[in-house]
Amino acid sequence: MSQTINRCYRLRHRPSGAITADDLEFGEEPVPSIGPDQALVRTLWLSLDPANRIWMSEIHYNMPPVPIGGVMRGFGIGEVVASQRADMNVGDLVSGITGWADYAVADTSNLVPFAVLPMPLPAQPQSLLGALGNSGVTAYLGVHDICRPRAGETMVVTAAAGAVGSVAGQIGKARGARVVGTAGSAVKCRHVVRAYGFDACINYRDTNWRDQLDAATPDGIDNIFENVGGQILGHLVSRLNVGARIALCGLIADYNSYGSLDPAPRTSIDAEQLLISRALVGSFLVLDHSDRFPEATSYLTDLKDAGKLVHDETVVNGLDRARDAFEQMFNGANTGKLVIKVAEPARMVAVQSLARR
Amino acid sequence: MSQTINRCYRLRHRPSGAITADDLEFGEEPVPSIGPDQALVRTLWLSLDPANRIWMSEIHYNMPPVPIGGVMRGFGIGEVVASQRADMNVGDLVSGITGWADYAVADTSNLVPFAVLPMPLPAQPQSLLGALGNSGVTAYLGVHDICRPRAGETMVVTAAAGAVGSVAGQIGKARGARVVGTAGSAVKCRHVVRAYGFDACINYRDTNWRDQLDAATPDGIDNIFENVGGQILGHLVSRLNVGARIALCGLIADYNSYGSLDPAPRTSIDAEQLLISRALVGSFLVLDHSDRFPEATSYLTDLKDAGKLVHDETVVNGLDRARDAFEQMFNGANTGKLVIKVAEPARMVAVQSLARR
Repeated sequence: MSQTINRCYRLRHRPSGAITADDLEFGEEPVPSIGPDQALVRTLWLSLDPANRIWMSEIHYNMPPVPIGGVMRGFGIGEVVASQRADMNVGDLVSGITGWADYAVADTSNLVPFAVLPMPLPAQPQSLLGALGNSGVTAYLGVHDICRPRAGETMVVTAAAGAVGSVAGQIGKARGARVVGTAGSAVKCRHVVRAYGFDACINYRDTNWRDQLDAATPDGIDNIFENVGGQILGHLVSRLNVGARIALCGLIADYNSYGSLDPAPRTSIDAEQLLISRALVGSFLVLDHSDRFPEATSYLTDLKDAGKLVHDETVVNGLDRARDAFEQMFNGANTGKLVIKVAEPARMVAVQSLARR
Repeated sequence: MSQTINRCYRLRHRPSGAITADDLEFGEEPVPSIGPDQALVRTLWLSLDPANRIWMSEIHYNMPPVPIGGVMRGFGIGEVVASQRADMNVGDLVSGITGWADYAVADTSNLVPFAVLPMPLPAQPQSLLGALGNSGVTAYLGVHDICRPRAGETMVVTAAAGAVGSVAGQIGKARGARVVGTAGSAVKCRHVVRAYGFDACINYRDTNWRDQLDAATPDGIDNIFENVGGQILGHLVSRLNVGARIALCGLIADYNSYGSLDPAPRTSIDAEQLLISRALVGSFLVLDHSDRFPEATSYLTDLKDAGKLVHDETVVNGLDRARDAFEQMFNGANTGKLVIKVAEPARMVAVQSLARR
């Protein structure tokens, strides 16, 4: 390894509102050295997810908060570049918590163990962080376990152009539901309808979004796959049919208020509407359900092979752009999965797989 | 029948806030006459339930709103006093929507068909409107289908001295949970612990109720059986453990605001708390689940026979006191099921059954 510098983001303060360079400091450090039963992983792709923002706060969300001074946590795909582990060889591609860093040490201290990826990789390996990984499995669990849309029902998916929403809506379509999305631009809405096959998609930045949503859901709403929160959810809940199911997956509209001293309005759900419609609200976190990954990824792969799962990745080049890209995600800059391309794989075995793109 | 007067309450206006005599007018009318395939039912006991308030509003809650000018809807037990129906004989005791009236006509126009009660009746026939009827089945469905408490979990039941809450908590105890109630007086709280066997009960009128609730739920809260709403629910939700389940059964704190021009604060549930705890919120209405009554009443009867189901009825004598009694229920006047005793049964068969009290 000629590389001696490890660039990484360390959490210096828990953000209050939008993240600053002061909160999440980008710096250079020596590459960690490894000892027995450790491997050194070079990050290739880093997944950026809205819920990562929760780990920056004091909230315990499946895992403890990132400690002050710690490397920012994040899932990624990496390549083993040095190994003293019997189960990992140099050149293996692995998935795990690489963190927002060039290098990670794979050992028993990882909150999620690194796992060697089976070859061959899919044509777009970064999809293993998105539609065929955590994001897709999230969509699968929310739709199949909670929303359970039936043929002819109306399902609304918020952040429909996002990594999870785009997949959730396509699963809803595969189950025969009428699927209506919301997204933050006319371009995104067109893409959601044309590429992902939603029946309609409403631009929530239009002043008459309520009227548009009402017109697109003339028979009321039977299912909500919620990624956003805020006043859109409030309006959707007011249109629930009896027996409706809501998968509460994410609240990106709120996350930047976590830790804020400013008592920003948080998303709340009107209890009367739930009572009158005898609704079910189920929240869930994919990281609780590692046992479901084989079932879910098998379903998603079949859906893709059947031509019924279109997915996009927004790939931003360079670890140095991770913080800005993450922040822009809260403004709706990405379509599909947001991934940072950190490095190219070094070994031929990986390059050969990637050449199949 | 020597009786020729039918006293009844008719809905003149949809109430705005607390019900007035102007909204729900008590008057005298001729007893209805019956024709072919009709029976005349004399009301004996009338069930008063918080959710009846919803029927007075414009909300469709399983059944259409009570029409303006219509007799107020309510479940009751009655006696057939005249019959041109092959399936009903004079003297039969029946359950159904008697309404807030001395007499009802049992025919195919009833939203819920009248049903002849099997003999012998339980020692307290009014319990068929409470712990062994709609209220008990409501508790059964909420606990078994939604809360699903496991041994060692902590379950909180609001309105624990009420018809539904008292049963819900006892089912939770039978399932091995630690059960904590809330009620509106020290006397009620003592009764909830001593008679119903709850582990603790907090008087929400104490200024330090939050501290008391926290002390009574040191391991957090795994299940909520919610009958009330308001700020207590908000506090409970802030203490949810991961994987918590909430049965949203009623919101008595809010009902009197329905139809009010005053924008009173309605109960809302903080979405972040649900997300972080991956909670499930399920609302339900017993009237949707008539198919579950045999299963539920069998369970409740067994629980009672095993000495694990204690139930109370607050019996108020006289139909003329129904409106005031209903209104007082919103102030927490009753313990257990609130029933209006409208009349004594006329026939020997019924009297003999009742003599077993």
